[in-house]
Order: sequence, then C-alpha cells, then structure tokens
Amino acid sequence: MALINKERIEKLKSKANDLLNRSLDQHITLAVTGLSRSGKTAFITSLVNQLVNEGNGSQLTFFTPVHQEQFIAAKRISQKNNHIARFDYDNSMAAFVNQPPSWPKPTHGVSELRLAIRYKPKDSLLRYATDMATLTVDITDYPGEWLLDLPMLNQTFEEWSQQTVGLLLKSPRLGLSQSFLNKVKEIDPFDDANEGLITQLSQEYTQLLHTFRNDLGLSVIQPGRFILPGELVGAPILEFIPFPNFANIDANDYQNASDKSFIGMLRVRYVEYKERVVRQFYQQHFINFDRQIVLADCLTPLNKGAESFADLKQAITMILESYHYGRSSLFSRLFYPKIDKLLFAATKADHITQDQHSNLESLLNELIHRSKHELNYDAIKMKTLAIASVRATIAGKSLHQGQQVPVLQGRRSSDDKTITVFPGSVPKKLPNKGYWQESHFNFIAFEPLQSVSVHESLPHIRMDHVLEFLLGDKMK
Amino acid sequence: MALINKERIEKLKSKANDLLNRSLDQHITLAVTGLSRSGKTAFITSLVNQLVNEGNGSQLTFFTPVHQEQFIAAKRISQKNNHIARFDYDNSMAAFVNQPPSWPKPTHGVSELRLAIRYKPKDSLLRYATDMATLTVDITDYPGEWLLDLPMLNQTFEEWSQQTVGLLLKSPRLGLSQSFLNKVKEIDPFDDANEGLITQLSQEYTQLLHTFRNDLGLSVIQPGRFILPGELVGAPILEFIPFPNFANIDANDYQNASDKSFIGMLRVRYVEYKERVVRQFYQQHFINFDRQIVLADCLTPLNKGAESFADLKQAITMILESYHYGRSSLFSRLFYPKIDKLLFAATKADHITQDQHSNLESLLNELIHRSKHELNYDAIKMKTLAIASVRATIAGKSLHQGQQVPVLQGRRSSDDKTITVFPGSVPKKLPNKGYWQESHFNFIAFEPLQSVSVHESLPHIRMDHVLEFLLGDKMK
Repeated sequence: MALINKERIEKLKSKANDLLNRSLDQHITLAVTGLSRSGKTAFITSLVNQLVNEGNGSQLTFFTPVHQEQFIAAKRISQKNNHIARFDYDNSMAAFVNQPPSWPKPTHGVSELRLAIRYKPKDSLLRYATDMATLTVDITDYPGEWLLDLPMLNQTFEEWSQQTVGLLLKSPRLGLSQSFLNKVKEIDPFDDANEGLITQLSQEYTQLLHTFRNDLGLSVIQPGRFILPGELVGAPILEFIPFPNFANIDANDYQNASDKSFIGMLRVRYVEYKERVVRQFYQQHFINFDRQIVLADCLTPLNKGAESFADLKQAITMILESYHYGRSSLFSRLFYPKIDKLLFAATKADHITQDQHSNLESLLNELIHRSKHELNYDAIKMKTLAIASVRATIAGKSLHQGQQVPVLQGRRSSDDKTITVFPGSVPKKLPNKGYWQESHFNFIAFEPLQSVSVHESLPHIRMDHVLEFLLGDKMK
Repeated sequence: MALINKERIEKLKSKANDLLNRSLDQHITLAVTGLSRSGKTAFITSLVNQLVNEGNGSQLTFFTPVHQEQFIAAKRISQKNNHIARFDYDNSMAAFVNQPPSWPKPTHGVSELRLAIRYKPKDSLLRYATDMATLTVDITDYPGEWLLDLPMLNQTFEEWSQQTVGLLLKSPRLGLSQSFLNKVKEIDPFDDANEGLITQLSQEYTQLLHTFRNDLGLSVIQPGRFILPGELVGAPILEFIPFPNFANIDANDYQNASDKSFIGMLRVRYVEYKERVVRQFYQQHFINFDRQIVLADCLTPLNKGAESFADLKQAITMILESYHYGRSSLFSRLFYPKIDKLLFAATKADHITQDQHSNLESLLNELIHRSKHELNYDAIKMKTLAIASVRATIAGKSLHQGQQVPVLQGRRSSDDKTITVFPGSVPKKLPNKGYWQESHFNFIAFEPLQSVSVHESLPHIRMDHVLEFLLGDKMK
C-alpha cells in the first residue's frame, strides 16, 4: 500500500477525470454563411478571436460562461476534415493587425476551423463529475449561394425555370436580361441541341448573375455554383439556363423531348446539377450542421433601393424554406437536417448610430417575420441580432441645429479619409413607397479603424450575444 | 400489301440498320497525359483536328481507315461526364488560327471530349451486317503528375519518404533542398505536432517542387496534387512532407506514435492523400481507360543535361510500374485497369531535323527498355513514336563546310525571329558521360509557323501513325 504514493493517486485521479471528460465532452458544428458581401470572413475571424483571446481585453459580458467565470480558455486545434480547406484565421487576422488595418479577403467555397473550449461546468450534472469540460466547436464557412440553391432540390426544371424567369422579367433584372431572354425565345426547344449555343447562352446568363450581384447588389443568385464554379469550371453541368417559354409549348412534347434536344439537354443538366452539386452539398455538409448563422447586410440594400431590398427579403424567404421541414417540406424525401438554432445577424451595425440598432433588429425581424410563422418553433430556435463583427467606427455626439445628435466617426473606404457623419435612420418596419421616395439612408463603407495585436480582442458590437445564443446552452 | 410502299420499306431497313448499328457500335476511352510541358493540349487539339477535318488537306496516309477509304467522317458530340470540364478544343484551335499563331494554353486537371467516327467496316463481320458503323472515342486529358502519384498506392509513408528523400539528397535537387531537410531533421518527430509549422514546411516543400519542375526541368514531382491543387487548395490533406530521419528513429516508436505527434500527423495526411486523391483518381478515371498515351519531351532534358535526363528515365519507370500488373503488382489489391495499348510519344520531333527522328525513337525506346521487359506483353501492347502534334518548322538543306546539311527553319519563341538552324544530333542510345561533357544538343523552342483556318488540318509529323495504333484496329 505504501507503494501507492500521492503522486500516483493524483495521476490516477487525473486519468479518471480524463476518461470521464472524454465521454462528457460536447461537440457542436456551427455553419456560417452570408448573403452577398455581408462580411462572413470578418465574422468568423472575430468569433474565433473573441474566444481564443478571452481575457485580453475582450468584452463578452453577455456571454454567460465568461460572465460567470466558467470559461477557462479556447484554442484552435486540427480541423475535422483534412480534405476541406482550412479557414485561414491567421491571414484574416493579419488584415486587422496590419498598419493601417483592412478587411480580410473573402473566402470562396467551403472551409473549416475547429476550436476546443475548456470550461468549468456549473449548472449541469457535469459539475459533480468533473472539474473541467471541453466543448469542441467545428466552424464551417460556406457561400450563401449554396444555401440559396437548396430549394432547387424540390423543383423540377419547369418549376425552377418559371420562378427564375419570373425574376428576370421584373425590375431591376428586366432591363439587363431582356436581350438574353429574346435570344432564348427564338430557339425551337425541340430542335437538336447545339452545344456551342448552350455554352454561349449559359455564359451570358452567368454574366448576368455577376452583374445582378455586383452592380445591383441583389441576393437571389441561382444557380449559385455558376458564379463560384470551383473545380467545376468548364464542366457542362454548369451550362444550362432557365427556359422562358414553357407557356407556349405542349406539356406532352416537353415530357417526351429527347435528351439531345435543346430543352432536353437543359433539363438533363439541371437534374445533374441538382444531384451532383446541390444534393452533394446537402449530404456532405448541410445535414451535419447543428446550428446555422446567416449574415445579411441590410444596409446596402436599404441604400440601393426598394428592389434590392425586396430581393434580400426573397433570399431570406428561400433560406427559411430550407429549414421549414415538417409535413409539406422540401426535406421529406431527404434525411432531416438536425439544426436546432438559426441565427440571422444584420451585420455592419457599426455603420449606423447606436440609437438605430433596435430599428435594424426590428427591420430584420420583419424581413423574416412571415416565414418565421410557418416554421416549426419546437424544432428550431430562431434569433435576430444587429451586430458588428469588428467595430470600425467610434460613436459620438455632434451639435446640429442646436441639438446634440449621435454621429459616427470612421475611415471612409472610398477615399481613406476620416469623417464624421450621421448616416441616417433605419426604418423600424419594412419601408413603404414613401420611404423610398424620400431616400432617408446614406450608407458609407468604412475600413477598420485601429490595428490590434494578434493576441488582442477585436472591438465588436454584440458578438457576446452571438456567442451566448450559439454556445451558451452547451457550456452550462 | 400495296400499303407497304418503297418509302416505308426503306424506312424499316434504315431503322433495322440503326438498331444493328447501335449494338455493333464500338466505344473506346483514350487517356492522354504528359510529362512536364510535353505539349498535351497541342496533341489533343491536333488529334481531334485531324479527324474532324479529314479530307481538308489532312495527311493521314498511315491511318488505314483513311488509306483504304473506309473513313467517312468524325464529329464532336456531347461528352460522357457532364461534371468534368470540357476539353476546350475551340479555344485551343483559336490559338492556331490567330495571326500570328501561338501554342494553346495548357490545361489543368482533367477534361473530356467525345468524338463519333463514322466508317465503313471492311474486314470484320460488321461488313456483312451494315453499311456504316460508329466508333465513339472518349478522350480524357489529365496531368502527368497524377499518373506519377499512382505508385504511392503501394507505398507506406516510410517507403515513400525514403524514396523521396533519396531524390532530394541527390544532385540536382540537393543544392535546393538541403536547408529544407536540415530544418526537418531538427524536429523531434514524437513531439506534439505544431500544425502551423507543418503548414510552413509543406509550403516550402511545394515551392521546391515548383522549382524542380520549372527551373530544373525535372519530371518526378510528388505528390503531384501539391503543384496542381485544384479544389483542394488550402486543405490540410495537401500539407505533409517526406520525413528524412527514419534511419534514426525506433520502428516501434514510429508504429506507436500518436496521430497528434509530428510524424503521426504527417503519416495520417499521407494516408488520407492516398485514399482521397490518388485512389479517387484511380477509381473514377484510371480503371476506365482503354488506351493510354504518354507524351514526353525528351529534347528539353537532353538539353538540360544528364540529371534532368535521368529524372525523365525515372519518371517513365514509375509510370510503367503502374501498368506492370500481374503477380507482384501494385494493382493486385485493386481492380485491374483494362488498358490494352500504351503509346509513348516523344513530342516536338519537328524541333530536330528529319534524319534525327529515328534516333529520337531509339532513345525513347531505350528509356523504356528495362521496364518494358518486365511488362506483361500479352496484356499491353506498347509502342514508341517520335511525333510533332503540330509541325512548327520547315525542313531544308544548307551548305556547311562544302556539304549539304539538313536544317530547320522556324520562328524562335524567345525573340519571335525566323531562324535557320541545325539543332544537333540526338543520341541513338542513352547518352554516356562523354556525350554530356561535349554537350551536342541545342534545343530551341519554336512557335507555330503558319495560321490555319478552323476547318483545315494542322500540319503534323506522324499523327497518322498515332491514330493507326490507337484506333486502326477498332475500325476494321
């Protein structure tokens, strides 16, 4: 008995603890996506930064594990899937460390990062079993366009064409797409397909998608892989277009059309796209997600006008459709996704004054309001937040016509000048015609204001609320 | 009976013929690859060009179906796999059509093109059954590096490391790789892996591979996906290195090393690379190939010197290993590949004078000689040819010291000047020390000489021999 000394007992105790820990350890997969240019890379970088630098000036008051001093430390560890690109945290942080700081480069495709968070369990059963527990967090970053493609799984080529052409025939797309549509309408859909012509038309359609996104600031871009082809660049599967003339062709003729006909070739490729691109994303990634963050920049559409804003609304509706499982659902034929929490975050809250934040949140709430009602509340918890992943402005007051008004100071992206402005008020509700006619809002893009060191926490707005919603319940 | 008129009988006859054709139609998959910068894109473009433009000035005397007037016509049709990039024949041809013409841009990754060749059967049973048959030819283009990776399937991480480090420790690689190897040797392989360090070292190793290929003109570049990452860019699976210190570590320690140790992490990633990259290429593509064309530029290594030439020899040996199936084979554990013909073509034969062609062919024969003996002759027919996919020079004679000597005229790539030269003699056998000391050969790169129209045949050397070997027996 004398042989079992204190050191050995400690060792055994620690080993037992280790074993227990391992079985009690929790694991969660956070999926992060964003609608065009919502600041996905900055968001993930800040989220990781807040956790790994906790204590070094971090402001995470609303994150219960920090508030209640349960949080011990977080570190990056080897990611889950070696064949998936690594989310390049170091390079993204470097952008904020540089003098002067800048926004990190956007990512393309899917990337991963894994965090191990050590904490002291408090309220749960774990408390009595162990001193320390680990929550493993897999963050998966993927383009919002891939999420917007999911509803295609439930649509035939005819249905998808009608929906897509419906969009093309409305302002603001119509002006740009008219000549494309006219060209397609001239083709006899039952003629033998001219593959070169299909290539040409799909290139023209892809170019339209780029213009919709970059110049018009639109969110509904389908098929998403057309503008982010990755390894499929040059493959025929990315060469099809919506067919605008279903009203004028016979349904039987369409059903019987050979795969070698113009319409038949489009249909074949649409189906292959669904199977090889959309369903593959669904099965390899989507069904493994535990929680989803959707970032949306509501301010740019607000600035661009009614049509851009309506497009954002439609994009959000399409996204909610993907989560609307149950009786009449898209996913009845597929495995159920296991997502239990869905966070919509309106980013760039630092680009408006503090007094407008609650309006931004209400506005986002209104955007998802209708669809939210159709969601199965028991299955998915939803939340909306107005956030700034990395705060780029300083809030202040200025005297305007004898009154103290809130203003922002920041480094304007367009000319790198430090300016002080009041960007305007954000409507609390979905804006009506009157709002657009008066054009209240003046969105100005800012660069990050001050460099930080690699080990410092990035300034932010409500990233602690984000963490609380996404991770808080798993660290009790 | 009167109802069955002539037209109807003809229609029935034609329909019966169609049905018969369909069942008698033949199909073949040609895989085309090349060792660094051997002119793969020019080769495929010319091969397609010769067939689709047959009759428009094509010189295909040695291609029996043309010689015996069985060849009817060839055309491009929709490719087999819609999710694979299309081989961009039109853009490649455009390079030859432009004024002045240039070489087409190289392809990256895998691409496909399908041809339908119509011909009159002559010697076979088909002759009595039908007037016309169709041979469908699927051409698959893929990087030579992928072929060079195949032997990894049969190697453990230890074996691969030893082979690869063996190369790194010899001239011409040693001078460049010494500092990299020293850095790796300083690491304790059983320490916990520092993932950032592994990323950094693998980037350094990848940079070495680029230098070996581009500056030293070497052929053995492994792992091949490191320099052509495609969709795997940034993925940890492309971050490992050969370990140079196996001689000094204990075999048991190595076997028991945790996956989280430095050596363990390298091993895990090597194994994942084999499974996810090499085996995937093997199973999705390689086992479907009927015939393989390997293009090699023997002239540049001849110019660069003994070491570059020895490297070409090793690359060819490694490639032949992949086909050396049978008792002791790499493929005993895998499905058998069904390749029945293997063509090694020494490209750029137009860059030497006509009298040297037979030497070039002998030299290539010597390069594959040893390995050839080990091949199962019954299973795979092999052939070597000296070819020019697209002839870029004009042959002539010039008076030199009172004698008529053969010369070439061409547009030199480096300065776009038209020059007349005698590039030197190609050795008939593997060159010995004496040859390298005297440095006989002076390779000059030429641009294509004259534009052609899209519907014209490209000038070539022995593409008809290529077609005869690859397709002749299928069109009897």
